[in-house]
Amino acid sequence: MGGSADGHTRIGILTISDLGAQGRRDDTSGDVIADWAADREYEIVVRSIVPDETTLIAGKLSRWADSGEVDVILTTGGTGLTDRDVTPEATAAVLDRAAPGIAEALRATAARGFPRAWLSRGLAGTRGRTLIVNLAGSPNAATEGLAVLESFIDHAVGLVTGRATAHRAPRTAHHAPRTAHRAPRTVSDG
Amino acid sequence: MGGSADGHTRIGILTISDLGAQGRRDDTSGDVIADWAADREYEIVVRSIVPDETTLIAGKLSRWADSGEVDVILTTGGTGLTDRDVTPEATAAVLDRAAPGIAEALRATAARGFPRAWLSRGLAGTRGRTLIVNLAGSPNAATEGLAVLESFIDHAVGLVTGRATAHRAPRTAHHAPRTAHRAPRTVSDG
Amino acid sequence: MGGSADGHTRIGILTISDLGAQGRRDDTSGDVIADWAADREYEIVVRSIVPDETTLIAGKLSRWADSGEVDVILTTGGTGLTDRDVTPEATAAVLDRAAPGIAEALRATAARGFPRAWLSRGLAGTRGRTLIVNLAGSPNAATEGLAVLESFIDHAVGLVTGRATAHRAPRTAHHAPRTAHRAPRTVSDG
Repeated sequence: MGGSADGHTRIGILTISDLGAQGRRDDTSGDVIADWAADREYEIVVRSIVPDETTLIAGKLSRWADSGEVDVILTTGGTGLTDRDVTPEATAAVLDRAAPGIAEALRATAARGFPRAWLSRGLAGTRGRTLIVNLAGSPNAATEGLAVLESFIDHAVGLVTGRATAHRAPRTAHHAPRTAHRAPRTVSDG
Repeated sequence: MGGSADGHTRIGILTISDLGAQGRRDDTSGDVIADWAADREYEIVVRSIVPDETTLIAGKLSRWADSGEVDVILTTGGTGLTDRDVTPEATAAVLDRAAPGIAEALRATAARGFPRAWLSRGLAGTRGRTLIVNLAGSPNAATEGLAVLESFIDHAVGLVTGRATAHRAPRTAHHAPRTAHRAPRTVSDG
Repeated sequence: MGGSADGHTRIGILTISDLGAQGRRDDTSGDVIADWAADREYEIVVRSIVPDETTLIAGKLSRWADSGEVDVILTTGGTGLTDRDVTPEATAAVLDRAAPGIAEALRATAARGFPRAWLSRGLAGTRGRTLIVNLAGSPNAATEGLAVLESFIDHAVGLVTGRATAHRAPRTAHHAPRTAHRAPRTVSDG
């Protein structure tokens, strides 16, 4: 259910940039992600640039996730504080579940050397069996964010896609809770 | 109004585990919390195991909190990224108010030695006069989380239950704000 | 469009305190913020004290932000865990967009020396072209929070108000995305 035939993680790269979408700026941050993914032998199954428009961003994210062909989507750009920065709102609109710790990790680690990293409003979470993570927009921020992700992303993708099943119960019979490990002492536990 | 007759903090322990609820796995993490609570002379008023089902988790949390008999509920399990992990969603459904810093503390501290700790999606917050905190599911994660909580949990419980009243105003007359400390200079402040 | 005529950042200071609003406690934390702002040559355009009432807090924040006369609002107080602490809820009610990293920064930094700082539930974000940040209530917490803000607040205000336009596209023609930087390989990207 997830993973290409040969087991490589399948990645989508979405750059959010008004200038980039107009062809007026090179997508250097997207290139940083693509190079990183290639080094890790991820399969880059889709890559695109969209302007800072909520509906366009959310449309890409949801179509890619719902295609069943992408295990992880990394976005870059649009996480800041200007009025054009709407990547977090677009991402929130499509996430099933938030993974706030991933966003915290990206900010806390980057901020050690660059306090302005606290200003990134990026989110992370899952939609179906796809992990979505917002990286900040500059090539340096993307590089640093990727270094943080390296410490847990393969494990995360394994959990989200269902390929890593550690600690997972069989899907049958989970509706039969055993009685409480210890009986309630004072609270009615019906 | 909170606290047992002898002043001990009253704790509820909820383990969320499909295998545990089926009696197919020992509730080692619940035991870790119980031992920790006993060491602190907390009164363990209720303890249970439920499978990873949103309605069952939310039902326990809300009944325990609304009983008036539990000052703090610690959960363990179900905070991860697999599709069975729904503890944060169940917790969010019953919280009155979020306490994001408690969840941040648990992740940031654990992640120093174990970066995968960033993947826990656990929440914390209050429902009425009960503090609810999601710990991650492994015994090691529970142990480490409890060590973090030790530095502030008694103060937190005191504030939530109303037993610690530092900086609190009398409940009378708070509807009579005095005039602005300094008059507005340029903004109409009606 | 943001910024006073002479380019100074325009600040509003809102103290949330039942006792303060009754005139029964000096607004020491508000004074700390005012002194800090004066040192930075910010223009203090409005300052007020309200009791811990959601509607009063939200009313001040929205009126100040919507006046177009305030670039940044710093609040102090009401971020804790007692049942009177509603500043985060009042703030959430008026924010257009969350800036979670600012709140994370305040907690993580203060908690290094004072673990109870994790208990602050303060938020940060934007409403229109105004940045709003909740600081904790004690003078020490306010002082420490301001020290954290110093490392990024001028940049943040510049972005929110539109005065800092780095990385911004012209407002014209952004609806014409260029084609994908690299063509999709397996996923339909319509």
